[in-house]
Amino acid sequence: MSFQEQIHDVAQLAMVELFTPKFEESYWFFHDVLGMTPNGDDGTSVYLRGYEDRYHHSLKLTRADHAGVGVVCWRASSPQALERRVAKIEASDNPGRWVDTNTGYGRAYEFTTPDGHKQHLFWDVEYFQPTEGQKSKLLSRAQKRPLRGVPVRRIDHINLLCSDVTKNASFLQENLGFLKRENVVFGGKEELACWLSVSPLVHEVAFTKDQAGPGNRLHHLAFWYGNQGQMLDLADILQEYDVHIEAGPAKHGISQGYFMYIYEPGGNRIELFGDTGYLIFDPEWKTLTWTEENFFSCGGVWFGGDLPQDFFVYGTPLVEAAMAKAEEVLEPAQ
Amino acid sequence: MSFQEQIHDVAQLAMVELFTPKFEESYWFFHDVLGMTPNGDDGTSVYLRGYEDRYHHSLKLTRADHAGVGVVCWRASSPQALERRVAKIEASDNPGRWVDTNTGYGRAYEFTTPDGHKQHLFWDVEYFQPTEGQKSKLLSRAQKRPLRGVPVRRIDHINLLCSDVTKNASFLQENLGFLKRENVVFGGKEELACWLSVSPLVHEVAFTKDQAGPGNRLHHLAFWYGNQGQMLDLADILQEYDVHIEAGPAKHGISQGYFMYIYEPGGNRIELFGDTGYLIFDPEWKTLTWTEENFFSCGGVWFGGDLPQDFFVYGTPLVEAAMAKAEEVLEPAQ
Amino acid sequence: MSFQEQIHDVAQLAMVELFTPKFEESYWFFHDVLGMTPNGDDGTSVYLRGYEDRYHHSLKLTRADHAGVGVVCWRASSPQALERRVAKIEASDNPGRWVDTNTGYGRAYEFTTPDGHKQHLFWDVEYFQPTEGQKSKLLSRAQKRPLRGVPVRRIDHINLLCSDVTKNASFLQENLGFLKRENVVFGGKEELACWLSVSPLVHEVAFTKDQAGPGNRLHHLAFWYGNQGQMLDLADILQEYDVHIEAGPAKHGISQGYFMYIYEPGGNRIELFGDTGYLIFDPEWKTLTWTEENFFSCGGVWFGGDLPQDFFVYGTPLVEAAMAKAEEVLEPAQ
Amino acid sequence: MSFQEQIHDVAQLAMVELFTPKFEESYWFFHDVLGMTPNGDDGTSVYLRGYEDRYHHSLKLTRADHAGVGVVCWRASSPQALERRVAKIEASDNPGRWVDTNTGYGRAYEFTTPDGHKQHLFWDVEYFQPTEGQKSKLLSRAQKRPLRGVPVRRIDHINLLCSDVTKNASFLQENLGFLKRENVVFGGKEELACWLSVSPLVHEVAFTKDQAGPGNRLHHLAFWYGNQGQMLDLADILQEYDVHIEAGPAKHGISQGYFMYIYEPGGNRIELFGDTGYLIFDPEWKTLTWTEENFFSCGGVWFGGDLPQDFFVYGTPLVEAAMAKAEEVLEPAQ
Repeated sequence: MSFQEQIHDVAQLAMVELFTPKFEESYWFFHDVLGMTPNGDDGTSVYLRGYEDRYHHSLKLTRADHAGVGVVCWRASSPQALERRVAKIEASDNPGRWVDTNTGYGRAYEFTTPDGHKQHLFWDVEYFQPTEGQKSKLLSRAQKRPLRGVPVRRIDHINLLCSDVTKNASFLQENLGFLKRENVVFGGKEELACWLSVSPLVHEVAFTKDQAGPGNRLHHLAFWYGNQGQMLDLADILQEYDVHIEAGPAKHGISQGYFMYIYEPGGNRIELFGDTGYLIFDPEWKTLTWTEENFFSCGGVWFGGDLPQDFFVYGTPLVEAAMAKAEEVLEPAQ
Repeated sequence: MSFQEQIHDVAQLAMVELFTPKFEESYWFFHDVLGMTPNGDDGTSVYLRGYEDRYHHSLKLTRADHAGVGVVCWRASSPQALERRVAKIEASDNPGRWVDTNTGYGRAYEFTTPDGHKQHLFWDVEYFQPTEGQKSKLLSRAQKRPLRGVPVRRIDHINLLCSDVTKNASFLQENLGFLKRENVVFGGKEELACWLSVSPLVHEVAFTKDQAGPGNRLHHLAFWYGNQGQMLDLADILQEYDVHIEAGPAKHGISQGYFMYIYEPGGNRIELFGDTGYLIFDPEWKTLTWTEENFFSCGGVWFGGDLPQDFFVYGTPLVEAAMAKAEEVLEPAQ
Repeated sequence: MSFQEQIHDVAQLAMVELFTPKFEESYWFFHDVLGMTPNGDDGTSVYLRGYEDRYHHSLKLTRADHAGVGVVCWRASSPQALERRVAKIEASDNPGRWVDTNTGYGRAYEFTTPDGHKQHLFWDVEYFQPTEGQKSKLLSRAQKRPLRGVPVRRIDHINLLCSDVTKNASFLQENLGFLKRENVVFGGKEELACWLSVSPLVHEVAFTKDQAGPGNRLHHLAFWYGNQGQMLDLADILQEYDVHIEAGPAKHGISQGYFMYIYEPGGNRIELFGDTGYLIFDPEWKTLTWTEENFFSCGGVWFGGDLPQDFFVYGTPLVEAAMAKAEEVLEPAQ
Repeated sequence: MSFQEQIHDVAQLAMVELFTPKFEESYWFFHDVLGMTPNGDDGTSVYLRGYEDRYHHSLKLTRADHAGVGVVCWRASSPQALERRVAKIEASDNPGRWVDTNTGYGRAYEFTTPDGHKQHLFWDVEYFQPTEGQKSKLLSRAQKRPLRGVPVRRIDHINLLCSDVTKNASFLQENLGFLKRENVVFGGKEELACWLSVSPLVHEVAFTKDQAGPGNRLHHLAFWYGNQGQMLDLADILQEYDVHIEAGPAKHGISQGYFMYIYEPGGNRIELFGDTGYLIFDPEWKTLTWTEENFFSCGGVWFGGDLPQDFFVYGTPLVEAAMAKAEEVLEPAQ
């Protein structure tokens, strides 16, 4: 079986853990504004889901003394696919270990990216069981659509800040079968960002050069609406309730995603993804490379206002340079 | 390699041929209203593409004395995947043959569904080459977005009328690795329709029981917008220019697709697909089955007005029962 | 001062009273689904507003043993305009009387349409006073946009069922300065419906022939979104939570309104108005008349599925003919 | 008759003349991109309309050696209203004169704002007469919706740069019955901008302090879609075809308008107005005043990215300070 034919061993981004130093406010944001449904609270973390997320949770929101990302969880396509991928990682410079006790999924293989972002890969997963009142008549919907805020449908992708984009991407390409769909290279040299996927989505994960910190940080976590209009409704609400909008609603050239970036009250950047961008079905897809000549005019933003400087330096955990900014915009939240 | 792991051997629906007895009017519809770009005319057929279709064409529009569907073209995921699938079909009850000369793609394996719908499966394909003036600054876009009508982005799926839904679906499942995502079964017995895919899309192909004809006919061919608002604009235009809207814009429960069905002037039903519905990333997905109890209340239409009786009997080529209807609604077209 | 120059003596539809035999369920609908803000409960009635309604309330929801419409309230353009209009009505066949004690507005002149629909016309009104927490940063917004359901912005218009459309319309035209913007006349004879306004809106009030009852009933009360996408969100929620959608989301030819008609759990038909349709600025506007030839093809629905038979016979209070229908669809509510 | 009761003497903004030094390119923009319909060309000017503009034209596009605004045309509400308003202006410091020969409308009273912007006020107007092929089935639509670009529906408002906002506004308030709906005042002193209307629209005309030039210039002319989604389609096209987008699509706090500002190839700033913002029906409306404290956080932009510095200094005719900018962004236009 050729390399190209193995790309489907990882099925999907299943869950992400976020740390928040302002738990109540963050919970208000995810629950009341993004309309996510809680599914358990173990005292340290609360588990939440979009109404079309099928598993136990898609977001693990953990009380902490600083913002940032915890474990990033991937579901394999089959038990065999899991074994194949674990064998690859075991044989790499950066082997991991099995972790047996997890909330919402079974035995998982834990490893890190070269930069240190913690990942779990697993097969066994706990499906969300709606109560009678939560059950939707729509068979493809895991639960009724909530009546709160502008509810997100499902988790979409994660963007990780790292010290070496190419190195981190290569690790996922070689060991997990990710394909590089688009990237940004300035001066023909350094790769500043790239977008990787295991499906027709342009990305389930992206890496961005950490220009303000040491890497191993979070750029953003994204949830999906698949609907442009809902983004305008959400923007209206966020402005009304003093949640900081960093950029958008606007359209990226890269990924063609209709985006909005906000800082949840705990400080993590969250992206809301308003349409599907484009989907890649062509098996001969070659990485699209943006340079300094077209990134600023088209790639970063196709239409809708420039990306502010913050977009290129802000991440969590906060580094000193960004502290002032965070204090300024996160103060008024709620 | 297990069966489940082979589902990706077929990459995508690449092209479909439609027959039209009113070529000029059909061409006006696809070119002026759906904004498709012509790419060659060999006297018998004209070749057209949505502005994000990457290959030579996605629609082959052929002058004929009746409406209907010609060859349905699938691209394999790799040369090896093509070989694997051809070997399967060769070993089936229904072997095909290689066809060497094709416009827009190379050597293809031609076979039919049990009902007789002609299919091509191939690897080699000709990419669309935009002229300088057609070239888009958006790297993921095969050409500039046209300024005509409400332009479709790409081909999405096809729905085939057949005499035996289960039999036709099984052929694609067993030989080409399609998965059955949703279906309709009344009385616990007959399967009236099903939706199959080789990707996170709910379907690239559907089979519907031909209740008014002998099978081996077309229910509809669908193009994708991925945008609800554009559907309202298109509906406004279609009503303005006397193109028959059969149903929608409205939302299916099945596939969650925001749909509109129209009859192009030649008589073929075309679906415009306004959002992405939902995507399937769960590798353990089990077919969702709708019955007479929930199909009429939720499955057929989630919101937006009932499906008319025509939806269940009209197809091309026309059978006598549907002739009168076709004459009535297709007459006024432009 | 000519007649034409007096049309602005009535400024706006300010409030409407609805009766409901299922108060809790109706309240859930207006509060949780339409996101209206309560502003007082006197034991008999609760007062509610859309978030951009400026006065004490726009909806008075009254506990009753049957559904239907109570008083319809109009604000005059000035104290002088009020006096002028009262003088006109006093001189008509159908004089009214002053009512001094009203919740939310001052002394009002009470009169009825020829069919008997009770109306109040007043100048003095109580403005809504948001609490500190309710106050919006948007100066033109009477309060923060709520986080519940898909919140309506303001009251828009009312449609009254009557025994004689022309007679009721003439009363408002002659005495209150309304202009007839569009109407439906079949067979060159009977006027079946008409739309009247005192502003660039196509209508603040419409009259529809009561084909199933004695007249003096409610066809529907409409609230405004001004946004097509929110209608799709609301339709999704209504289907999810078993609120009966009678028709739409779809677009009327008449008024160009993007509409949805639903039955609130108490049985009253409510229209949600998704865009602004068109606005009339031409001072020479002549009534647009639809006939049997274009009403069914374009006027009733421009696109989006036919109006069901119910649309032409259902109204509140229910008459016997419609009781069965109401029981069927209102049962599952919530 | 009190002042308040006279506000309706001016019915609407009917037509505006724009000068362009790049006639072919400007014509391409208005005709192919905004889908406007031409209605005559006298060698100097071409006359264009949106598909729901009812009169001979709404835009007079005039070949000239520089960009800028020509005559701004207002229709009165009646012949009497016209006489009343002419009498007022005749009695002012700034009387005008009658002009008898006009294309598209009859005898008009010509006057200027204090800053010098030329205005016409008239009653007699020529209605657009569609050809058989142009005729729409929709009675309220002046012609079929075109199949080109993203067609605008009608003219909406104009924003004029002037040396003294208060003085120019007062002239229209006192002599033409305009009401001031919102304004911007910094430091409790200078009025930097205001929005005036004679209808429930927030403005048919706005005045903005000319911070870079001598006044008597154009800030922008606006056309109306009434639809947020069409703005995103238009933005996509503008970026594709190199028409300069200055700001948006985004939402103003002031007027609540969903806006996009672009420079047409001739250099004039055009606003596309994507929804209806809000409408004013309250006869006691008091001017909403924005200050430096809330203009930058909410008033200028409610959501969607900041207004760039250009927005505050660019206008036509160009003054030297803005020439470089104009050259830069207008060069690439098709």
